[in-house]
Amino acid sequence: MTKKIKPRVFRGLRDWLPEEMSARLWIIDTIREVYERYGFAPLSTPAIEYYEALTGSAGSEIQSTLFKVNNPDRGVNPGDDALGLRFDLTVPLARVISQYRDLPRPFRRYQVASVYRADKPDPGRFREFTQFDLDAVGVPTTIADVEIMCAMCDTLSALDVGPYQVRFSSRSILNLLLKYAEIPPKVTVGKDDVRPATDVFRVLDKFDKIGAKKVRLELTTGYKDESGDSIPGLGLSNEQVDLIEQFLAIKSEDRDDVLSQLAGLFSDVEGAPEEIAVIKDMSDQLALLGYGSDRIVIDLSIARGLAYYTGPVFEAVLLDAPEFGSVFAGGRYDELVTRFIGEKIPATGASLGVDRLLAALIHLKRVKQEKTPTRVLVTAMDPALTNDYLEMTWELRRAGIPCEMFLGSKRKGIGKQMKYADSLDIPFAVMFGEDEKNRGIVTIKDLQQGRAESQAIEGREQWIRERPGQIEVPRNDLVDRIKELLTDQHK
Amino acid sequence: MTKKIKPRVFRGLRDWLPEEMSARLWIIDTIREVYERYGFAPLSTPAIEYYEALTGSAGSEIQSTLFKVNNPDRGVNPGDDALGLRFDLTVPLARVISQYRDLPRPFRRYQVASVYRADKPDPGRFREFTQFDLDAVGVPTTIADVEIMCAMCDTLSALDVGPYQVRFSSRSILNLLLKYAEIPPKVTVGKDDVRPATDVFRVLDKFDKIGAKKVRLELTTGYKDESGDSIPGLGLSNEQVDLIEQFLAIKSEDRDDVLSQLAGLFSDVEGAPEEIAVIKDMSDQLALLGYGSDRIVIDLSIARGLAYYTGPVFEAVLLDAPEFGSVFAGGRYDELVTRFIGEKIPATGASLGVDRLLAALIHLKRVKQEKTPTRVLVTAMDPALTNDYLEMTWELRRAGIPCEMFLGSKRKGIGKQMKYADSLDIPFAVMFGEDEKNRGIVTIKDLQQGRAESQAIEGREQWIRERPGQIEVPRNDLVDRIKELLTDQHK
Repeated sequence: MTKKIKPRVFRGLRDWLPEEMSARLWIIDTIREVYERYGFAPLSTPAIEYYEALTGSAGSEIQSTLFKVNNPDRGVNPGDDALGLRFDLTVPLARVISQYRDLPRPFRRYQVASVYRADKPDPGRFREFTQFDLDAVGVPTTIADVEIMCAMCDTLSALDVGPYQVRFSSRSILNLLLKYAEIPPKVTVGKDDVRPATDVFRVLDKFDKIGAKKVRLELTTGYKDESGDSIPGLGLSNEQVDLIEQFLAIKSEDRDDVLSQLAGLFSDVEGAPEEIAVIKDMSDQLALLGYGSDRIVIDLSIARGLAYYTGPVFEAVLLDAPEFGSVFAGGRYDELVTRFIGEKIPATGASLGVDRLLAALIHLKRVKQEKTPTRVLVTAMDPALTNDYLEMTWELRRAGIPCEMFLGSKRKGIGKQMKYADSLDIPFAVMFGEDEKNRGIVTIKDLQQGRAESQAIEGREQWIRERPGQIEVPRNDLVDRIKELLTDQHK
Repeated sequence: MTKKIKPRVFRGLRDWLPEEMSARLWIIDTIREVYERYGFAPLSTPAIEYYEALTGSAGSEIQSTLFKVNNPDRGVNPGDDALGLRFDLTVPLARVISQYRDLPRPFRRYQVASVYRADKPDPGRFREFTQFDLDAVGVPTTIADVEIMCAMCDTLSALDVGPYQVRFSSRSILNLLLKYAEIPPKVTVGKDDVRPATDVFRVLDKFDKIGAKKVRLELTTGYKDESGDSIPGLGLSNEQVDLIEQFLAIKSEDRDDVLSQLAGLFSDVEGAPEEIAVIKDMSDQLALLGYGSDRIVIDLSIARGLAYYTGPVFEAVLLDAPEFGSVFAGGRYDELVTRFIGEKIPATGASLGVDRLLAALIHLKRVKQEKTPTRVLVTAMDPALTNDYLEMTWELRRAGIPCEMFLGSKRKGIGKQMKYADSLDIPFAVMFGEDEKNRGIVTIKDLQQGRAESQAIEGREQWIRERPGQIEVPRNDLVDRIKELLTDQHK
């Protein structure tokens, strides 16, 4: 006897059983419909990429979380390099753009797939999770960014997530802030780690998470966090942080109001009117298309952590479930493809976290979960009537009604078969015995009605004996009658 | 300047660009619809599994092709074991069944996902490929096997693959053959490698591939193949192989005919009438449900290579593309779950090779490929009319028409924009300039008509100047008119 294997999944991974998986598929189907209406086309890339493609494009915090895959050709094919699992879908897109140079441009694609990060897992944070991305490559105009935000809204509306807000800003506005606060192009982190001034954005992005006080410390002297780790400071002066806080204090639900306040604050900053005009154009285009301040706001605290953004940045939150954070986010990244081919190709896009959104929708009770597509269980009580059960099952299936015949152990009587239907929330059961056969009828049991009533009449077993919610119909009317019942149910 | 990264995919992996991916998604959607009508529910499992779960369930030829994944917790969490990428979807199903003991039984699930095998890649054989599996667990009755074969037929019919054939046999019939040919329970391979007699089935499964002569050699003395490798023999006598060949000679398009010939051949074999009666029942049930010999035949040469099968085995081939081999195959495996929990849980199912089927359908020109979902390109010629272009685009989208506005470089004139539409086979373009605006109209160009005519009028450039296939409609009729045109196109 061989050793038994313990059935388990690795820490941070998970299975999706049918109940949640049905909701997940509904989410994916719904998103796909919106993206295709926008003219985005599907793309698929391998989960395994060359390690250098992943590390060359990732920030350092991502590099440490890559899953490595053994290269089966190593030694066989010298020079074959290390492999890893993708950590996002944007880097594979940049590779695709670089590899197939004759792709039509603009290249507008969507991709839904698992990505892998060996982060420290905690509740709600997984090491394999599904992203659904849409991106347009070869699009210099900010109309493309407007389009992405519209698609974000239309997606969230189609998913019926309840109230949501898309918040946007732009790296170009943040660059004006650097000028305004007189932050030089390079900052020195801690002792002698010289970084671009854009590192300030990484810190600002943490505002919601760590608060104003810690942001100030991280921008200036640094601090020790609760666990005693040293967080190095960026060496700004308190006066510079005061100026940054003036900027962050500009808040309004009205987009024009934000922009006019911003114009006031940056009145002496070179280039400000032009950059603000770009955002104003975007805002006006959004308004023209019906995306008002009730759905899309300008939020100057939006910076997005990733290093590769170069223009507008956006993120969406569910207002009834803010604790789930941003469920859909992105921005313009005009230089990511450069990493592969040296050429600068303008691109913009956004990524929806399918699993995080699903968790939020389940929390909000805004998504339907089904344990099975089966609408009708054809019970199998009498082996002599097997052919009748088979025929009924296939009649229903051929009429497009998801249906199954009970195929479990023959020892399971009608009570067990009903329990099986209950455990899967199957709405109807068909019963057919010698008596029904002689009378030319079938019995249809409305299990949902039964489920409600069975609580009143104390217990399922009794309910099965007393048979409420049960109708008899002529055998030949089976399909039509079930169709009617399923339609009624949806009313 | 950092070193440029060469954009490439690892040997045996591939990207799916939109054209093929659209066909692939159509295949997956179509299969899902059939499986859901049969009442199978969706399941998803991680791509990464514990290595021991994979190796404990795989045959030796699969073990050597596993991709290993580094375990990020090694050292951090001692005792954490090696990880690998799944090589099929059946082993993860067995793990799920063992891990969630309170799942309803029967558990009927479908799963579509990538699997990974570090095989030597060759044309048409990939190291990541997509399987679409359906399985029923906890189903002792052969009606479940009948159902799988019916679902295979309905799937292939829904996919409109042209003529196909599902071929089936059973390990129980093959076990009768062992008795008939007096093959002992253990055979000695080569010198002293003792294996179960079922190893004979592995050799028989190669009949189509290597032919009768080599099968005979491999069953008896062994031989040296073209590349000089020694193929060990199973040590049977030539008389035993004669008996096996008698068995394999039973061939008929008529299922009853095969069974009556078989009954004749096995007239002296103990237990034969009972086992043959089981197959006869299955055949009769298939006939009752309308699955005749035109679609499903009994083929005694079907053995399936995998070690875990215990009952009926089946495979499907496309009769117009036999060179693609079996595209959909499976069987009953009543002992796979035992590996995890010691308990025997009867199960049956089949797996469709999505990528292989897609390759066959493309070869047969039986699948539609689309480079984009976009039906209408709103061209953008005059920056002053941007708002008009935006409004038209969103009007069309809101009417459910996949549509995009040209967002490429502003330097691209109307010729380049039309070229873009051509490169994606977009059927219609909308043109709108100062003149149209003043006249309250838009111009719709039928690009498909144009594409056909442009060959007659020598060249695309000239065609654009001469403007055939072009109609003017009132601006307010744009959506309705496009709808009409798209409907006409489908006639």
